Amino acid sequence: MQKKYVYSFNEGNKEMKSLLGGKGANLAEMTKIGLPVPLGFTITAEACNRYYSESQEISQDITKQISDYLKILEESTRKKFGDPQNPLLVSVRSGAVVSMPGMMDTILNLGLNDESVVGLAKLTENERFAFDSYRRFIQMFSDVVLDIPKHKFDRILEIKKSQKGLLSDIDLTSEDIKAVIEEYKRLVKQETQKDFPQETKKQLLMAVEAVFDSWNNPRAHIYRQLNHIPSDLGTAVNVQSMVFGNMGSTSGTGVAFTRSPITGKKDLFGEFLINAQGEDVVAGIRTPLPISQLEKTMPEIYNQFKNIANLLENHYKDMQDIEFTIERGKLFMLQTRNGKRSAEAAIKVAVDMVSEEIIDKKTAVSRIEPAQIDQLLHPTFDSKELMNAQSIAQGLPASPGAASGLIYFTAEDAVEARKNGEKVILVRLETSPEDIEGMIASEGILTARGGMTSHAAVVARGMGKCCVSGCSDIRVEESEKMLYINSESYGEGQYLSLDGNTGMVYKDFIKTMDPELSGDFAVLMKWSDEIRTLKIRANADNPKDASIAVKFGAEGIGLCRTEHMFFEEERIPMVRKMIVAGNKEERQEALESLLAYQKEDFKGIFKEMGIRPVTIRLLDPPLHEFLPHKDEEIRTLSSQIKMDYKKLKDKIEDLKEFNPMLGHRGCRLAVTYPEIYEMQTRAIILAAIEVKSEENMDVIPEIMIPLIGSGKEFEYVKKMVHETAIGVLREFDTNVLFKIGTMIEVPRAALTADEIAQQAEFFSFGTNDLTQMTYGFSRDDSGKFIKDYKINRILESDPFQTIDEAGVGKLIKMAVDLGRSARPDIKLGICGEHGGDPRSINFCQSIGLDYVSCSPYRVPIARIAAAQARLKER
Amino acid sequence: MQKKYVYSFNEGNKEMKSLLGGKGANLAEMTKIGLPVPLGFTITAEACNRYYSESQEISQDITKQISDYLKILEESTRKKFGDPQNPLLVSVRSGAVVSMPGMMDTILNLGLNDESVVGLAKLTENERFAFDSYRRFIQMFSDVVLDIPKHKFDRILEIKKSQKGLLSDIDLTSEDIKAVIEEYKRLVKQETQKDFPQETKKQLLMAVEAVFDSWNNPRAHIYRQLNHIPSDLGTAVNVQSMVFGNMGSTSGTGVAFTRSPITGKKDLFGEFLINAQGEDVVAGIRTPLPISQLEKTMPEIYNQFKNIANLLENHYKDMQDIEFTIERGKLFMLQTRNGKRSAEAAIKVAVDMVSEEIIDKKTAVSRIEPAQIDQLLHPTFDSKELMNAQSIAQGLPASPGAASGLIYFTAEDAVEARKNGEKVILVRLETSPEDIEGMIASEGILTARGGMTSHAAVVARGMGKCCVSGCSDIRVEESEKMLYINSESYGEGQYLSLDGNTGMVYKDFIKTMDPELSGDFAVLMKWSDEIRTLKIRANADNPKDASIAVKFGAEGIGLCRTEHMFFEEERIPMVRKMIVAGNKEERQEALESLLAYQKEDFKGIFKEMGIRPVTIRLLDPPLHEFLPHKDEEIRTLSSQIKMDYKKLKDKIEDLKEFNPMLGHRGCRLAVTYPEIYEMQTRAIILAAIEVKSEENMDVIPEIMIPLIGSGKEFEYVKKMVHETAIGVLREFDTNVLFKIGTMIEVPRAALTADEIAQQAEFFSFGTNDLTQMTYGFSRDDSGKFIKDYKINRILESDPFQTIDEAGVGKLIKMAVDLGRSARPDIKLGICGEHGGDPRSINFCQSIGLDYVSCSPYRVPIARIAAAQARLKER
Repeated sequence: MQKKYVYSFNEGNKEMKSLLGGKGANLAEMTKIGLPVPLGFTITAEACNRYYSESQEISQDITKQISDYLKILEESTRKKFGDPQNPLLVSVRSGAVVSMPGMMDTILNLGLNDESVVGLAKLTENERFAFDSYRRFIQMFSDVVLDIPKHKFDRILEIKKSQKGLLSDIDLTSEDIKAVIEEYKRLVKQETQKDFPQETKKQLLMAVEAVFDSWNNPRAHIYRQLNHIPSDLGTAVNVQSMVFGNMGSTSGTGVAFTRSPITGKKDLFGEFLINAQGEDVVAGIRTPLPISQLEKTMPEIYNQFKNIANLLENHYKDMQDIEFTIERGKLFMLQTRNGKRSAEAAIKVAVDMVSEEIIDKKTAVSRIEPAQIDQLLHPTFDSKELMNAQSIAQGLPASPGAASGLIYFTAEDAVEARKNGEKVILVRLETSPEDIEGMIASEGILTARGGMTSHAAVVARGMGKCCVSGCSDIRVEESEKMLYINSESYGEGQYLSLDGNTGMVYKDFIKTMDPELSGDFAVLMKWSDEIRTLKIRANADNPKDASIAVKFGAEGIGLCRTEHMFFEEERIPMVRKMIVAGNKEERQEALESLLAYQKEDFKGIFKEMGIRPVTIRLLDPPLHEFLPHKDEEIRTLSSQIKMDYKKLKDKIEDLKEFNPMLGHRGCRLAVTYPEIYEMQTRAIILAAIEVKSEENMDVIPEIMIPLIGSGKEFEYVKKMVHETAIGVLREFDTNVLFKIGTMIEVPRAALTADEIAQQAEFFSFGTNDLTQMTYGFSRDDSGKFIKDYKINRILESDPFQTIDEAGVGKLIKMAVDLGRSARPDIKLGICGEHGGDPRSINFCQSIGLDYVSCSPYRVPIARIAAAQARLKER
Repeated sequence: MQKKYVYSFNEGNKEMKSLLGGKGANLAEMTKIGLPVPLGFTITAEACNRYYSESQEISQDITKQISDYLKILEESTRKKFGDPQNPLLVSVRSGAVVSMPGMMDTILNLGLNDESVVGLAKLTENERFAFDSYRRFIQMFSDVVLDIPKHKFDRILEIKKSQKGLLSDIDLTSEDIKAVIEEYKRLVKQETQKDFPQETKKQLLMAVEAVFDSWNNPRAHIYRQLNHIPSDLGTAVNVQSMVFGNMGSTSGTGVAFTRSPITGKKDLFGEFLINAQGEDVVAGIRTPLPISQLEKTMPEIYNQFKNIANLLENHYKDMQDIEFTIERGKLFMLQTRNGKRSAEAAIKVAVDMVSEEIIDKKTAVSRIEPAQIDQLLHPTFDSKELMNAQSIAQGLPASPGAASGLIYFTAEDAVEARKNGEKVILVRLETSPEDIEGMIASEGILTARGGMTSHAAVVARGMGKCCVSGCSDIRVEESEKMLYINSESYGEGQYLSLDGNTGMVYKDFIKTMDPELSGDFAVLMKWSDEIRTLKIRANADNPKDASIAVKFGAEGIGLCRTEHMFFEEERIPMVRKMIVAGNKEERQEALESLLAYQKEDFKGIFKEMGIRPVTIRLLDPPLHEFLPHKDEEIRTLSSQIKMDYKKLKDKIEDLKEFNPMLGHRGCRLAVTYPEIYEMQTRAIILAAIEVKSEENMDVIPEIMIPLIGSGKEFEYVKKMVHETAIGVLREFDTNVLFKIGTMIEVPRAALTADEIAQQAEFFSFGTNDLTQMTYGFSRDDSGKFIKDYKINRILESDPFQTIDEAGVGKLIKMAVDLGRSARPDIKLGICGEHGGDPRSINFCQSIGLDYVSCSPYRVPIARIAAAQARLKER
């Protein structure tokens, strides 16, 4: 039997989305449940795929099926395609599974030609309407099918109007329009060397091909890429007999949501136009009326529509976005689909629908797009003030939130200004670890260089701080402390506002509003927590972040980096002294003075976290990251620590590395300088002992050794840490339950995870570094070429944002299996940036991790994503 | 039944090495075949391991077995341990499977105490001999068992001599010696708070423990590490009744090889001393006589020994190193083992033994230590001149060979001097890719910084050029063009000589001699080639290296790097112009002018290689490596290429990377700048076409795309290369068989090798980079900490020298399996430094690679190693 490529609307239903596309399936469904849908048929997505597999030609058997269905349509409508008496006119619309901007949308009035236009005139008793429809059809068809720029047609129309001294199209007579049509046809002939197609069936096939072609145009491609839609789905094409909303005052057209897509409130939300076609609404020439007005204008139609809307929402069990047309007092449904909505609306609709008993809690949770709620977790600009704000530049939306403050150009100045109670916007060419304190002191960060994964972006996201990075519109002269945008300059202490959700930079101060996490949001979080099995921890390096993490529902700290603590103003000289120490004694002396600080750091965090586990990573970055590089700073340090300038400079030079990422860092530091990890371990255990006695609270430190590459290496460093910890406990004759585990971030660690697991009590996948090494992509440098990789479709998504399952994921999976084989109860988590990415969380669930850890501000997102991952699993 | 921990010499044989150690097994074997071996027994290596597993105590059952065997020994010798009438004296010697410097070697005369010494005097009728033996025993035992420094005993002896006004020990009387013994015993008491052990059985057990302990001393440990000997083998202990070579003129002792260990000539080679014990030979107080003299001194003994030597060689089927003692006219065999030999001797002995029909060819091939023959493949210093040479510093033996020449401090000066016919030694702080031409122009390279895998070391090894790196004894002031060693300074144009085998640096000129590769060497190579199944290719970047590779027996080029070609003086400005080009057109223009050069490069190589396959790797390093960094050089370039200085400097700044290793390089360059690979592909195919027409020879270019990380990426770049190649072939209407494949050097490539193999016709494992990324070790930086890893036993061997089988090897194995699953006939090779490392070659054979590729100078080593790997496999 021949394969079926065409389905009449009464042959399908809403389950057939993958074949009929979203639009086609819903048209079929509405037909099935008896709603007034203009007759028509759908050409399947499979036909589209076949079109591509057969060098972009529609095969004969498909053409035949289209003809057959056209004949049925003619019979049902009692009209004939191209008929000069009673012509059938159709709309042709694309209909992919997911609607996609960039794809060809709609051609209306297809079937009009020099003959049928006369029939339409007769039928509607309105010659001007008929010819104007024909004119519009030629223009639309030429634009989207024949690829003739629209403006060329507009120009013809403009000339005609100016010849006649008219201002509006509406004032053109039938004769004027006929003349314009002739000009249009001449233009088509000139541009395509062919006459405008008069044969209606040919028009139809050309339109179908144009829809198929648009599946692969660049914009559609990019959209698919951004939204992770596979490229081989194909699109269906819907052919539907026309109804006219522009046939006088008893006709009209409109769009409505069953609930507000902005607030989620349960009220019809939408607008309509009397005597108009859909495109008039879009064109914006006339201002549509709110849908509530329809009740006054056409009360019966309004009630009919309201009932249908209700019925559709209950039928689809979701908020609907509905298109309708009224033709001479008769209501037709042209489309229904699940309505897009704001994060706020998404949450309200989901929660309301559960109380209305339309859906259950699980469905409610699965309805939320986790990434979308990010915007609810950060401050936003007051929308009224924003309307009057003047945008002056745009960079990358590197870290969400909104911030207003005074410009400062150095970390020191930012810290100082903060102390004076000012709100600070830190503006830098790019940031480095030395700027951490300045970043902490700021409301938002703006950098001229660096991508979405630059230092500024990563650190700001971790802090939940607004950041706009890689803003090439600006020029930062750090030495002058000046910022230049276009011809204007901005100095220290001037106001600036940043929107981290859009990357926009605004002049002056704009009021911000804090996020509201109670009400429906809290309800949904509770439901998510009931569903999920993955634990959610946060990455937090200080008591403040720890407290935010707890507020957002974190069940522990998955990554507490100790290096940020080293950068604080009071400590950094001691840190530097320790690094450049000539021998172990000097180093130990400097470390001794750091011990007290570190202990207090840990105590603060332990107190915030209580009995929740806290994973503390011992020192990770290469030591040279802590050292100054400018001559002036070196001189200052030289006198601070009383070390000869030349000797100090040589030492700093000596520590430089070609590839710091693969250099002397992580546990490698502990092999060379055991006293560093010994001090940190001592500080952790002392802090735990003191919190235990002060607060009578058993804290659970998990000591994490970074950058492990082999079982032997772990054994060696673990022994050092373990002996130190036990030593401290003996000293105080007390006990603290602590664990020792490792980051799995070096490919070799994943490959030999069984060896490592023999000693390690937990693994935490450091997916940032693991991705860097598995791909051989330096995060600091790959911005330069990753964009080319995306443009050329070599990379579907940025592996630093979403775990690369085929490569990095394979390694993680290996490590999980090997690790569990050696130690069945090993605790497994992830603490890279990926820990807050919903798709990556789904992967973590699928391979059976125990927890994910992410920035405190992403904890709620992770909670929902984890619940959804669990639901998918079932 | 109880486990047997002690074996009498007549219970074992030579197959029991792993249990009895080499020495013990051979003593048993000699006993078994009826040779005169003093009676004794062996305590097994298992006893040693048990000693370690039981907190370094000898368990009771083992003690019991030792006592039992001691009793048997007493009965057989009719002597008694500690007996004042007829005392049994024994030697105690360690005996690991492989003899190991650093381990306790020998204690002689054990069993002497205050009573038995009297018995010995009676027995030998020589009181002075007996007491001197006792004195020596106390000293030796105290040194190795009680850990009392030898010099303290020497001092007592010296005082005694000076008191008596004597010069030599021999002049001391029995009474003197007795007095010395008393002093010795006092010293022991003072140092150990205990009396010198008089109980002979206790002496024995203490000696056995000392042997066991010495298994784990640092020197032995380092030796095992260097020689890849597992740490858990343990050592056996041999207890043997004493015979005395120092009982007068009919006694003596000696050592002899059955053939010359230097030349391999078939003649007894060795020396002996009359009236002496083994330690006298070692002490060097008396000069031993050549073994041939024994024929005159003791003709019967000589003949008996000669026969035994012959018998042993035929029995063991290898050249033997034999120790013997003559006691009052009776010959005793104390040890036999396979003799260590020079590379030259190894080859001669192996080949001779085949013609003597003692061994077959396979055995001959398996006898050669592949690494050892390296010294035969490079120039060496004239040994006479070397004897008078003055060594002034020592660095790392980074690349073998010997070189003498005039010092130059910059690549340019070296090139210039070379043009004037001078021999050059390039002296640098460290080298960078910009120095390549200077390195080519030099005889040898000396650097102050950098390890065995620094740029200088790697490049020099590739060139087969002598290099001493990381020579911290020297100070190089590049700006002054001066070299300082200790207090002396060396300027440009002064002579210097380097030995790359030892790392020694000599003053003045020393004559060098070229290697000789004919004769026995050639025969052995032929045999290796008959056995091996792995193909051997060479890494060669120019016609000269290609020609050396062919001379050394390479069957193709496995890696032809194209970047070295870019550094040549004439081209580098064009390369730089191409890199800083503002747009595609400028870039293409610069590339156009490089095309002719590249084509000639490839033609030259193709002509040398003929129909042997040549794998050409397209451009790999990040572009900034080609750019100058000093202001002065930037200015020069700015005028050369007519580009504004500031703009050029900014561009250079822009191209800098944080981690170049993981940056914009390899195929990533081709994604951004396709025109570079297009030019190179064009040059390759044009070269092939021209060589085909000029020489009527079908060359086989294999185009290799570096740094591939995914199937999509390979597909993308392959398409570009393939289309370019096909385009050129169409242009000339001809055909050339070419292949397109990839390096597997990024972990992700190994993990997704099946995807890549769908498109790639060959894989070449780039194990250098693969090791860097799998371990997360930057080769340029890891020198700083890898040494700590070795000292602390975290790393057994340098993963850049020998493939890390557990980690990197696991990835390679995965890639092999995945690759073959997708493309069964895929060609698989390896082109990292590991390609020339015998242990790594063994691994390559075991996972079924098709070929290994290494430096031309290592090709013969690889041929032997491959043959041995094949033999092991059977």
